Amino acid sequence: MIIETFMARKPLYRSPRSSSPVTDLSRRHEKRTPTRQRSHAVAQGDYWIYGLHAVSAALENPHRQAHELLATREAAGNLPDNLVLQPRIVTREQLDSLCGRDAVHQGVCLHVSPLEPLTIEEALEREGPVLVLDQVTDPRNIGAILRSAAAFGAAGVLVQDRNTPPETGTMAKAASGGLDIVPLLRETNLSRALAQLQNAGLWVIGLDAGGTPLRRETLGDRRVALVLGAEGAGLRRLTRETCDEIASIHMPGTMESLNVSNASAVALYELTRTLAP
Amino acid sequence: MIIETFMARKPLYRSPRSSSPVTDLSRRHEKRTPTRQRSHAVAQGDYWIYGLHAVSAALENPHRQAHELLATREAAGNLPDNLVLQPRIVTREQLDSLCGRDAVHQGVCLHVSPLEPLTIEEALEREGPVLVLDQVTDPRNIGAILRSAAAFGAAGVLVQDRNTPPETGTMAKAASGGLDIVPLLRETNLSRALAQLQNAGLWVIGLDAGGTPLRRETLGDRRVALVLGAEGAGLRRLTRETCDEIASIHMPGTMESLNVSNASAVALYELTRTLAP
Repeated sequence: MIIETFMARKPLYRSPRSSSPVTDLSRRHEKRTPTRQRSHAVAQGDYWIYGLHAVSAALENPHRQAHELLATREAAGNLPDNLVLQPRIVTREQLDSLCGRDAVHQGVCLHVSPLEPLTIEEALEREGPVLVLDQVTDPRNIGAILRSAAAFGAAGVLVQDRNTPPETGTMAKAASGGLDIVPLLRETNLSRALAQLQNAGLWVIGLDAGGTPLRRETLGDRRVALVLGAEGAGLRRLTRETCDEIASIHMPGTMESLNVSNASAVALYELTRTLAP
Repeated sequence: MIIETFMARKPLYRSPRSSSPVTDLSRRHEKRTPTRQRSHAVAQGDYWIYGLHAVSAALENPHRQAHELLATREAAGNLPDNLVLQPRIVTREQLDSLCGRDAVHQGVCLHVSPLEPLTIEEALEREGPVLVLDQVTDPRNIGAILRSAAAFGAAGVLVQDRNTPPETGTMAKAASGGLDIVPLLRETNLSRALAQLQNAGLWVIGLDAGGTPLRRETLGDRRVALVLGAEGAGLRRLTRETCDEIASIHMPGTMESLNVSNASAVALYELTRTLAP
């Protein structure tokens, strides 16, 4: 059923190397040529996505260039049966050694090229708030944030290219499909990107301690870009000064801060909450 | 400043082996006897807490039995200066080899015994909702949930003892101090524990897809226990049937579920949200 959800969505990404999606028959033919497979395996940035949700979402993203699909016999039954890229049946042990012992691959691995990031203009054609991450570097956190961004219908997640790790299997697994649902925007200059969002009419809120309470009620119909800083350091001075407002999540307990993934989820929830009738 | 926050709280735990907290001078003396140190090192369940927030919270928890504090010269300056358990100055490399290369120890490590879990009755003397985890097994997730539970003032986090990993450095690090702020309750039988919460007057809500929207407004003054299942599997049938209500987080996006740590944070936020005036 998760497959149907993904299929119902319109394409989000351009493919980095060709316009042909994985469902293109010419690609299917390529898979049968071992030498071409080998050349894929060493292409810059190519990596393995693992886990059922992450692999399914990548397979259903028409702009995701996928090269090879491996699955155990058991897991292959959980994949959609209308795929052009048919799985090669392997053992669980082969996937263990491919993904690393700690990777919960659930019997499926997909060899892919990274997606080409959208521009801010392209992302703003989608609905929903924009999430901006200032110096968030942990791939698991970024993945979990993409998952929440998908759950709460964010238009995109904007990061500074230089400080953000590339797409990896770890990031895709933590995103549980979100990497192929919500565009990850990689910008060179974060302050310039924030100004661009402001020029496009977005209200830029920095999430930090000591701000006004973040409340859906006070925002009216404004479209919001929400900026989150690294754990510990918080927002950098220049980023903070560029924001239209600094807001805080209401926390009645004794802890000073949530982890950045949980803060993102709670803030997105507040921004997209239905108001009391 | 986080130290002051912790100090302001009343003790949450009984110590598992003695009633003397780390501030007891007799313990300080023990540290000077190498043979006693070695016997600590092999005691059942003892482990190293690392990271500034986690170590600081453990040092300030009067029911945490701590045996040895290691710190780099630089990091020692960030610790409270009124500690009875003085840090032994070590190099960053020594801590790297003690904690593992990937552990972000921030220059401080504390050798501790695990806390003795509180009973349900003891935890209910604290204010706030109770979080119940049904088959959540990842120590990072449990740690992050403890951190959110501390941020939103939960009374405790209740787990099934058999399926829950013991306290570890990984869990304590992810909790960022939350492990020493919010009691982790380890019960043998989860259904019996839920019935006990119901008998104590709590309204038990299972968080799952297809429920009524979770809304603070509809709960009135009821004290809530919130039950979360494992990712993928969700709530087990018996757990689900024991709940007074099944509720869902409003998610306008395309993703079917949040990760369990983010779901906990959002649900706790909703339960403790201040209502519009």
